[in-house]
Amino acid sequence: MTQSPSAAMESLSVALGERTYPIHIGAGLLDDPGCLLPYLAGRQVMIVTNATVAPHYLDRLRHTLSGADLEVCEVILPDGEATKTLASVERIWDALLAAGFNRRCTLVALGGGVIGDMAGYAAASYQRGVAFIQVPTTLLAQVDSSVGGKTGVNHPRGKNMIGAFWQPRAVLIDTQTLATLPERELSAGLAEVIKYGLIWDAAFLDWLEREMPALRALDAAAIRHAIRRSCEIKAEIVAEDETEQGVRALLNLGHTFGHAIEAHQGYGNWLHGEAVGAGMAMAAALSAERGWLTGAEVERIGAVLAAAGLPRVAPAAMGVDDFLERMRLDKKNLDSRLRLILLEALGRAAIHDDTDPAMLERLIERFPRA
Amino acid sequence: MTQSPSAAMESLSVALGERTYPIHIGAGLLDDPGCLLPYLAGRQVMIVTNATVAPHYLDRLRHTLSGADLEVCEVILPDGEATKTLASVERIWDALLAAGFNRRCTLVALGGGVIGDMAGYAAASYQRGVAFIQVPTTLLAQVDSSVGGKTGVNHPRGKNMIGAFWQPRAVLIDTQTLATLPERELSAGLAEVIKYGLIWDAAFLDWLEREMPALRALDAAAIRHAIRRSCEIKAEIVAEDETEQGVRALLNLGHTFGHAIEAHQGYGNWLHGEAVGAGMAMAAALSAERGWLTGAEVERIGAVLAAAGLPRVAPAAMGVDDFLERMRLDKKNLDSRLRLILLEALGRAAIHDDTDPAMLERLIERFPRA
Repeated sequence: MTQSPSAAMESLSVALGERTYPIHIGAGLLDDPGCLLPYLAGRQVMIVTNATVAPHYLDRLRHTLSGADLEVCEVILPDGEATKTLASVERIWDALLAAGFNRRCTLVALGGGVIGDMAGYAAASYQRGVAFIQVPTTLLAQVDSSVGGKTGVNHPRGKNMIGAFWQPRAVLIDTQTLATLPERELSAGLAEVIKYGLIWDAAFLDWLEREMPALRALDAAAIRHAIRRSCEIKAEIVAEDETEQGVRALLNLGHTFGHAIEAHQGYGNWLHGEAVGAGMAMAAALSAERGWLTGAEVERIGAVLAAAGLPRVAPAAMGVDDFLERMRLDKKNLDSRLRLILLEALGRAAIHDDTDPAMLERLIERFPRA
Repeated sequence: MTQSPSAAMESLSVALGERTYPIHIGAGLLDDPGCLLPYLAGRQVMIVTNATVAPHYLDRLRHTLSGADLEVCEVILPDGEATKTLASVERIWDALLAAGFNRRCTLVALGGGVIGDMAGYAAASYQRGVAFIQVPTTLLAQVDSSVGGKTGVNHPRGKNMIGAFWQPRAVLIDTQTLATLPERELSAGLAEVIKYGLIWDAAFLDWLEREMPALRALDAAAIRHAIRRSCEIKAEIVAEDETEQGVRALLNLGHTFGHAIEAHQGYGNWLHGEAVGAGMAMAAALSAERGWLTGAEVERIGAVLAAAGLPRVAPAAMGVDDFLERMRLDKKNLDSRLRLILLEALGRAAIHDDTDPAMLERLIERFPRA
């Protein structure tokens, strides 16, 4: 018996008024024109992808688009966080202009978070804003960066410093693309999945502890549930606070520490998810210092990170000042107060700007190093 | 008798829901903290200006801000349309990051349209969007570019190709700044003022014909009325159609021809307003060809442009193809149909995409050259 790809599709919605859009999740969606064509703004389509993803999926996506009367072009960028620069976005703009693309064109981001962030920002700023569609091919992009409209690039002085809030028309998650994902990147994606349990849903954290081996073995049902629940939580938070004035900041659990690690180590040497994993371990330890988590709970968090294949220690070379200098430039530090996302319990996070600087320094100093 | 600056202030509002903002118009507003301080988002203020404007007004603006507990920095860019590039915007971002500015900073654009467009785009994309305030010092910026949230930069392949819709928190128009404006730039600003009469308000066009000598002599009452009525019309149109899906396109009367002139001649050699003036003369002539304007009305339009000190002819060196090639890349040409704003009567414009290409070519060919 053959089955159409979309028969196994699950969908949810990111509720943002006139910018509301669907997330479709399923195996084989990449081959289903019905998932893609309804979201195109006009006849001109620019696929933005990278040199690693293109050999696997570009032809399939082009084939899916081939039935319709479309003008399809592509930009293939180098892979990696180091390419997440304004210069790469300029390459996308140059390609759009060289092809004579107008305001009703659509950009399709085919790749991981870096591709999605760059294509999204290119779309946000091309002719003051054109349509785009996310087709994330890494777990991290599927559960986090493709959903919610954060786009942008890094600057030598900080991560994601240049960018825009720009929502996609749709997010299409083909879970089969995880088959070609390196194990290390799967683990990096699991860091964000664990984050949702930690900040929002203790029962999901329990489930993740049980199912971690199945997830790492790419068990189809487990993967689909993990992606769906992660996207649901993210969609709920984003719908409540699109531009991160409040609750959305909770999604940054571990990210202030994590961004410092990435910046110090050089973007891409530690994967984003790995840095976030270590950062969440640090945030958990600080939450225990503040008196909200028990030692046993901190240990549980460390154990689930380790089970996901993630570091639970900081880089050996990083001193206290290496952290503090970079944390002060973090976007979340409004008016120069250091705001940190901390856990008040498993499954419940909050923003705190009243951590004693001496306590923070001591924690960083004593935190285990690789 | 002394009078506080704000006593002579007039205000109107651009109604955009939660993004609604005021336009304040008056002589001496630059010295009035009460016009500026309420619109700052936080304590960090970056003034963006240029080397021509800074000697006249930067110290005054800094002084106006000096009473409050603020961190005030500045970026002084070179003057001119040729600097309206992504590289200039990067200089603004570099300055913001070097100063450690966070998401609650405010950019203040002090200058003409080029400064406003660049500072606005820098604000739109810095940390995914921060506050900005327009303090336009040219007539063109006061009546047009500072109002409505269009921001961006030029690309070698076209004008304003990279940018965002990003609304200011407030627009502060100090009419005294026109005293230092070169006569040629005053004329360029009058082109946009005439445009409002042509597309929206025939009675305003009558008034402009009568008052043109007073306007060119900077008669205070005449200037204030011209700015106020122009801003009212623009605010009404922008409130109806913020992102140019419909009626806002009418504001581009003469701009498709005008952008072709600017691009061919090199940005800045013809001022934007001069190119728009010639472009409106061309649009008027085409409207007559279509049967909507009489020859006498076309002549009236030419006469008011000439009275404002504007060209009513196209550049000698531009052939038909020089126009057509550049007009095809214009943002208003959705799905490759050439859309033009034409006059159906004096005071009434409409978008038309059904102009016979042969008629257009013939008109361009026969149109008088300088």
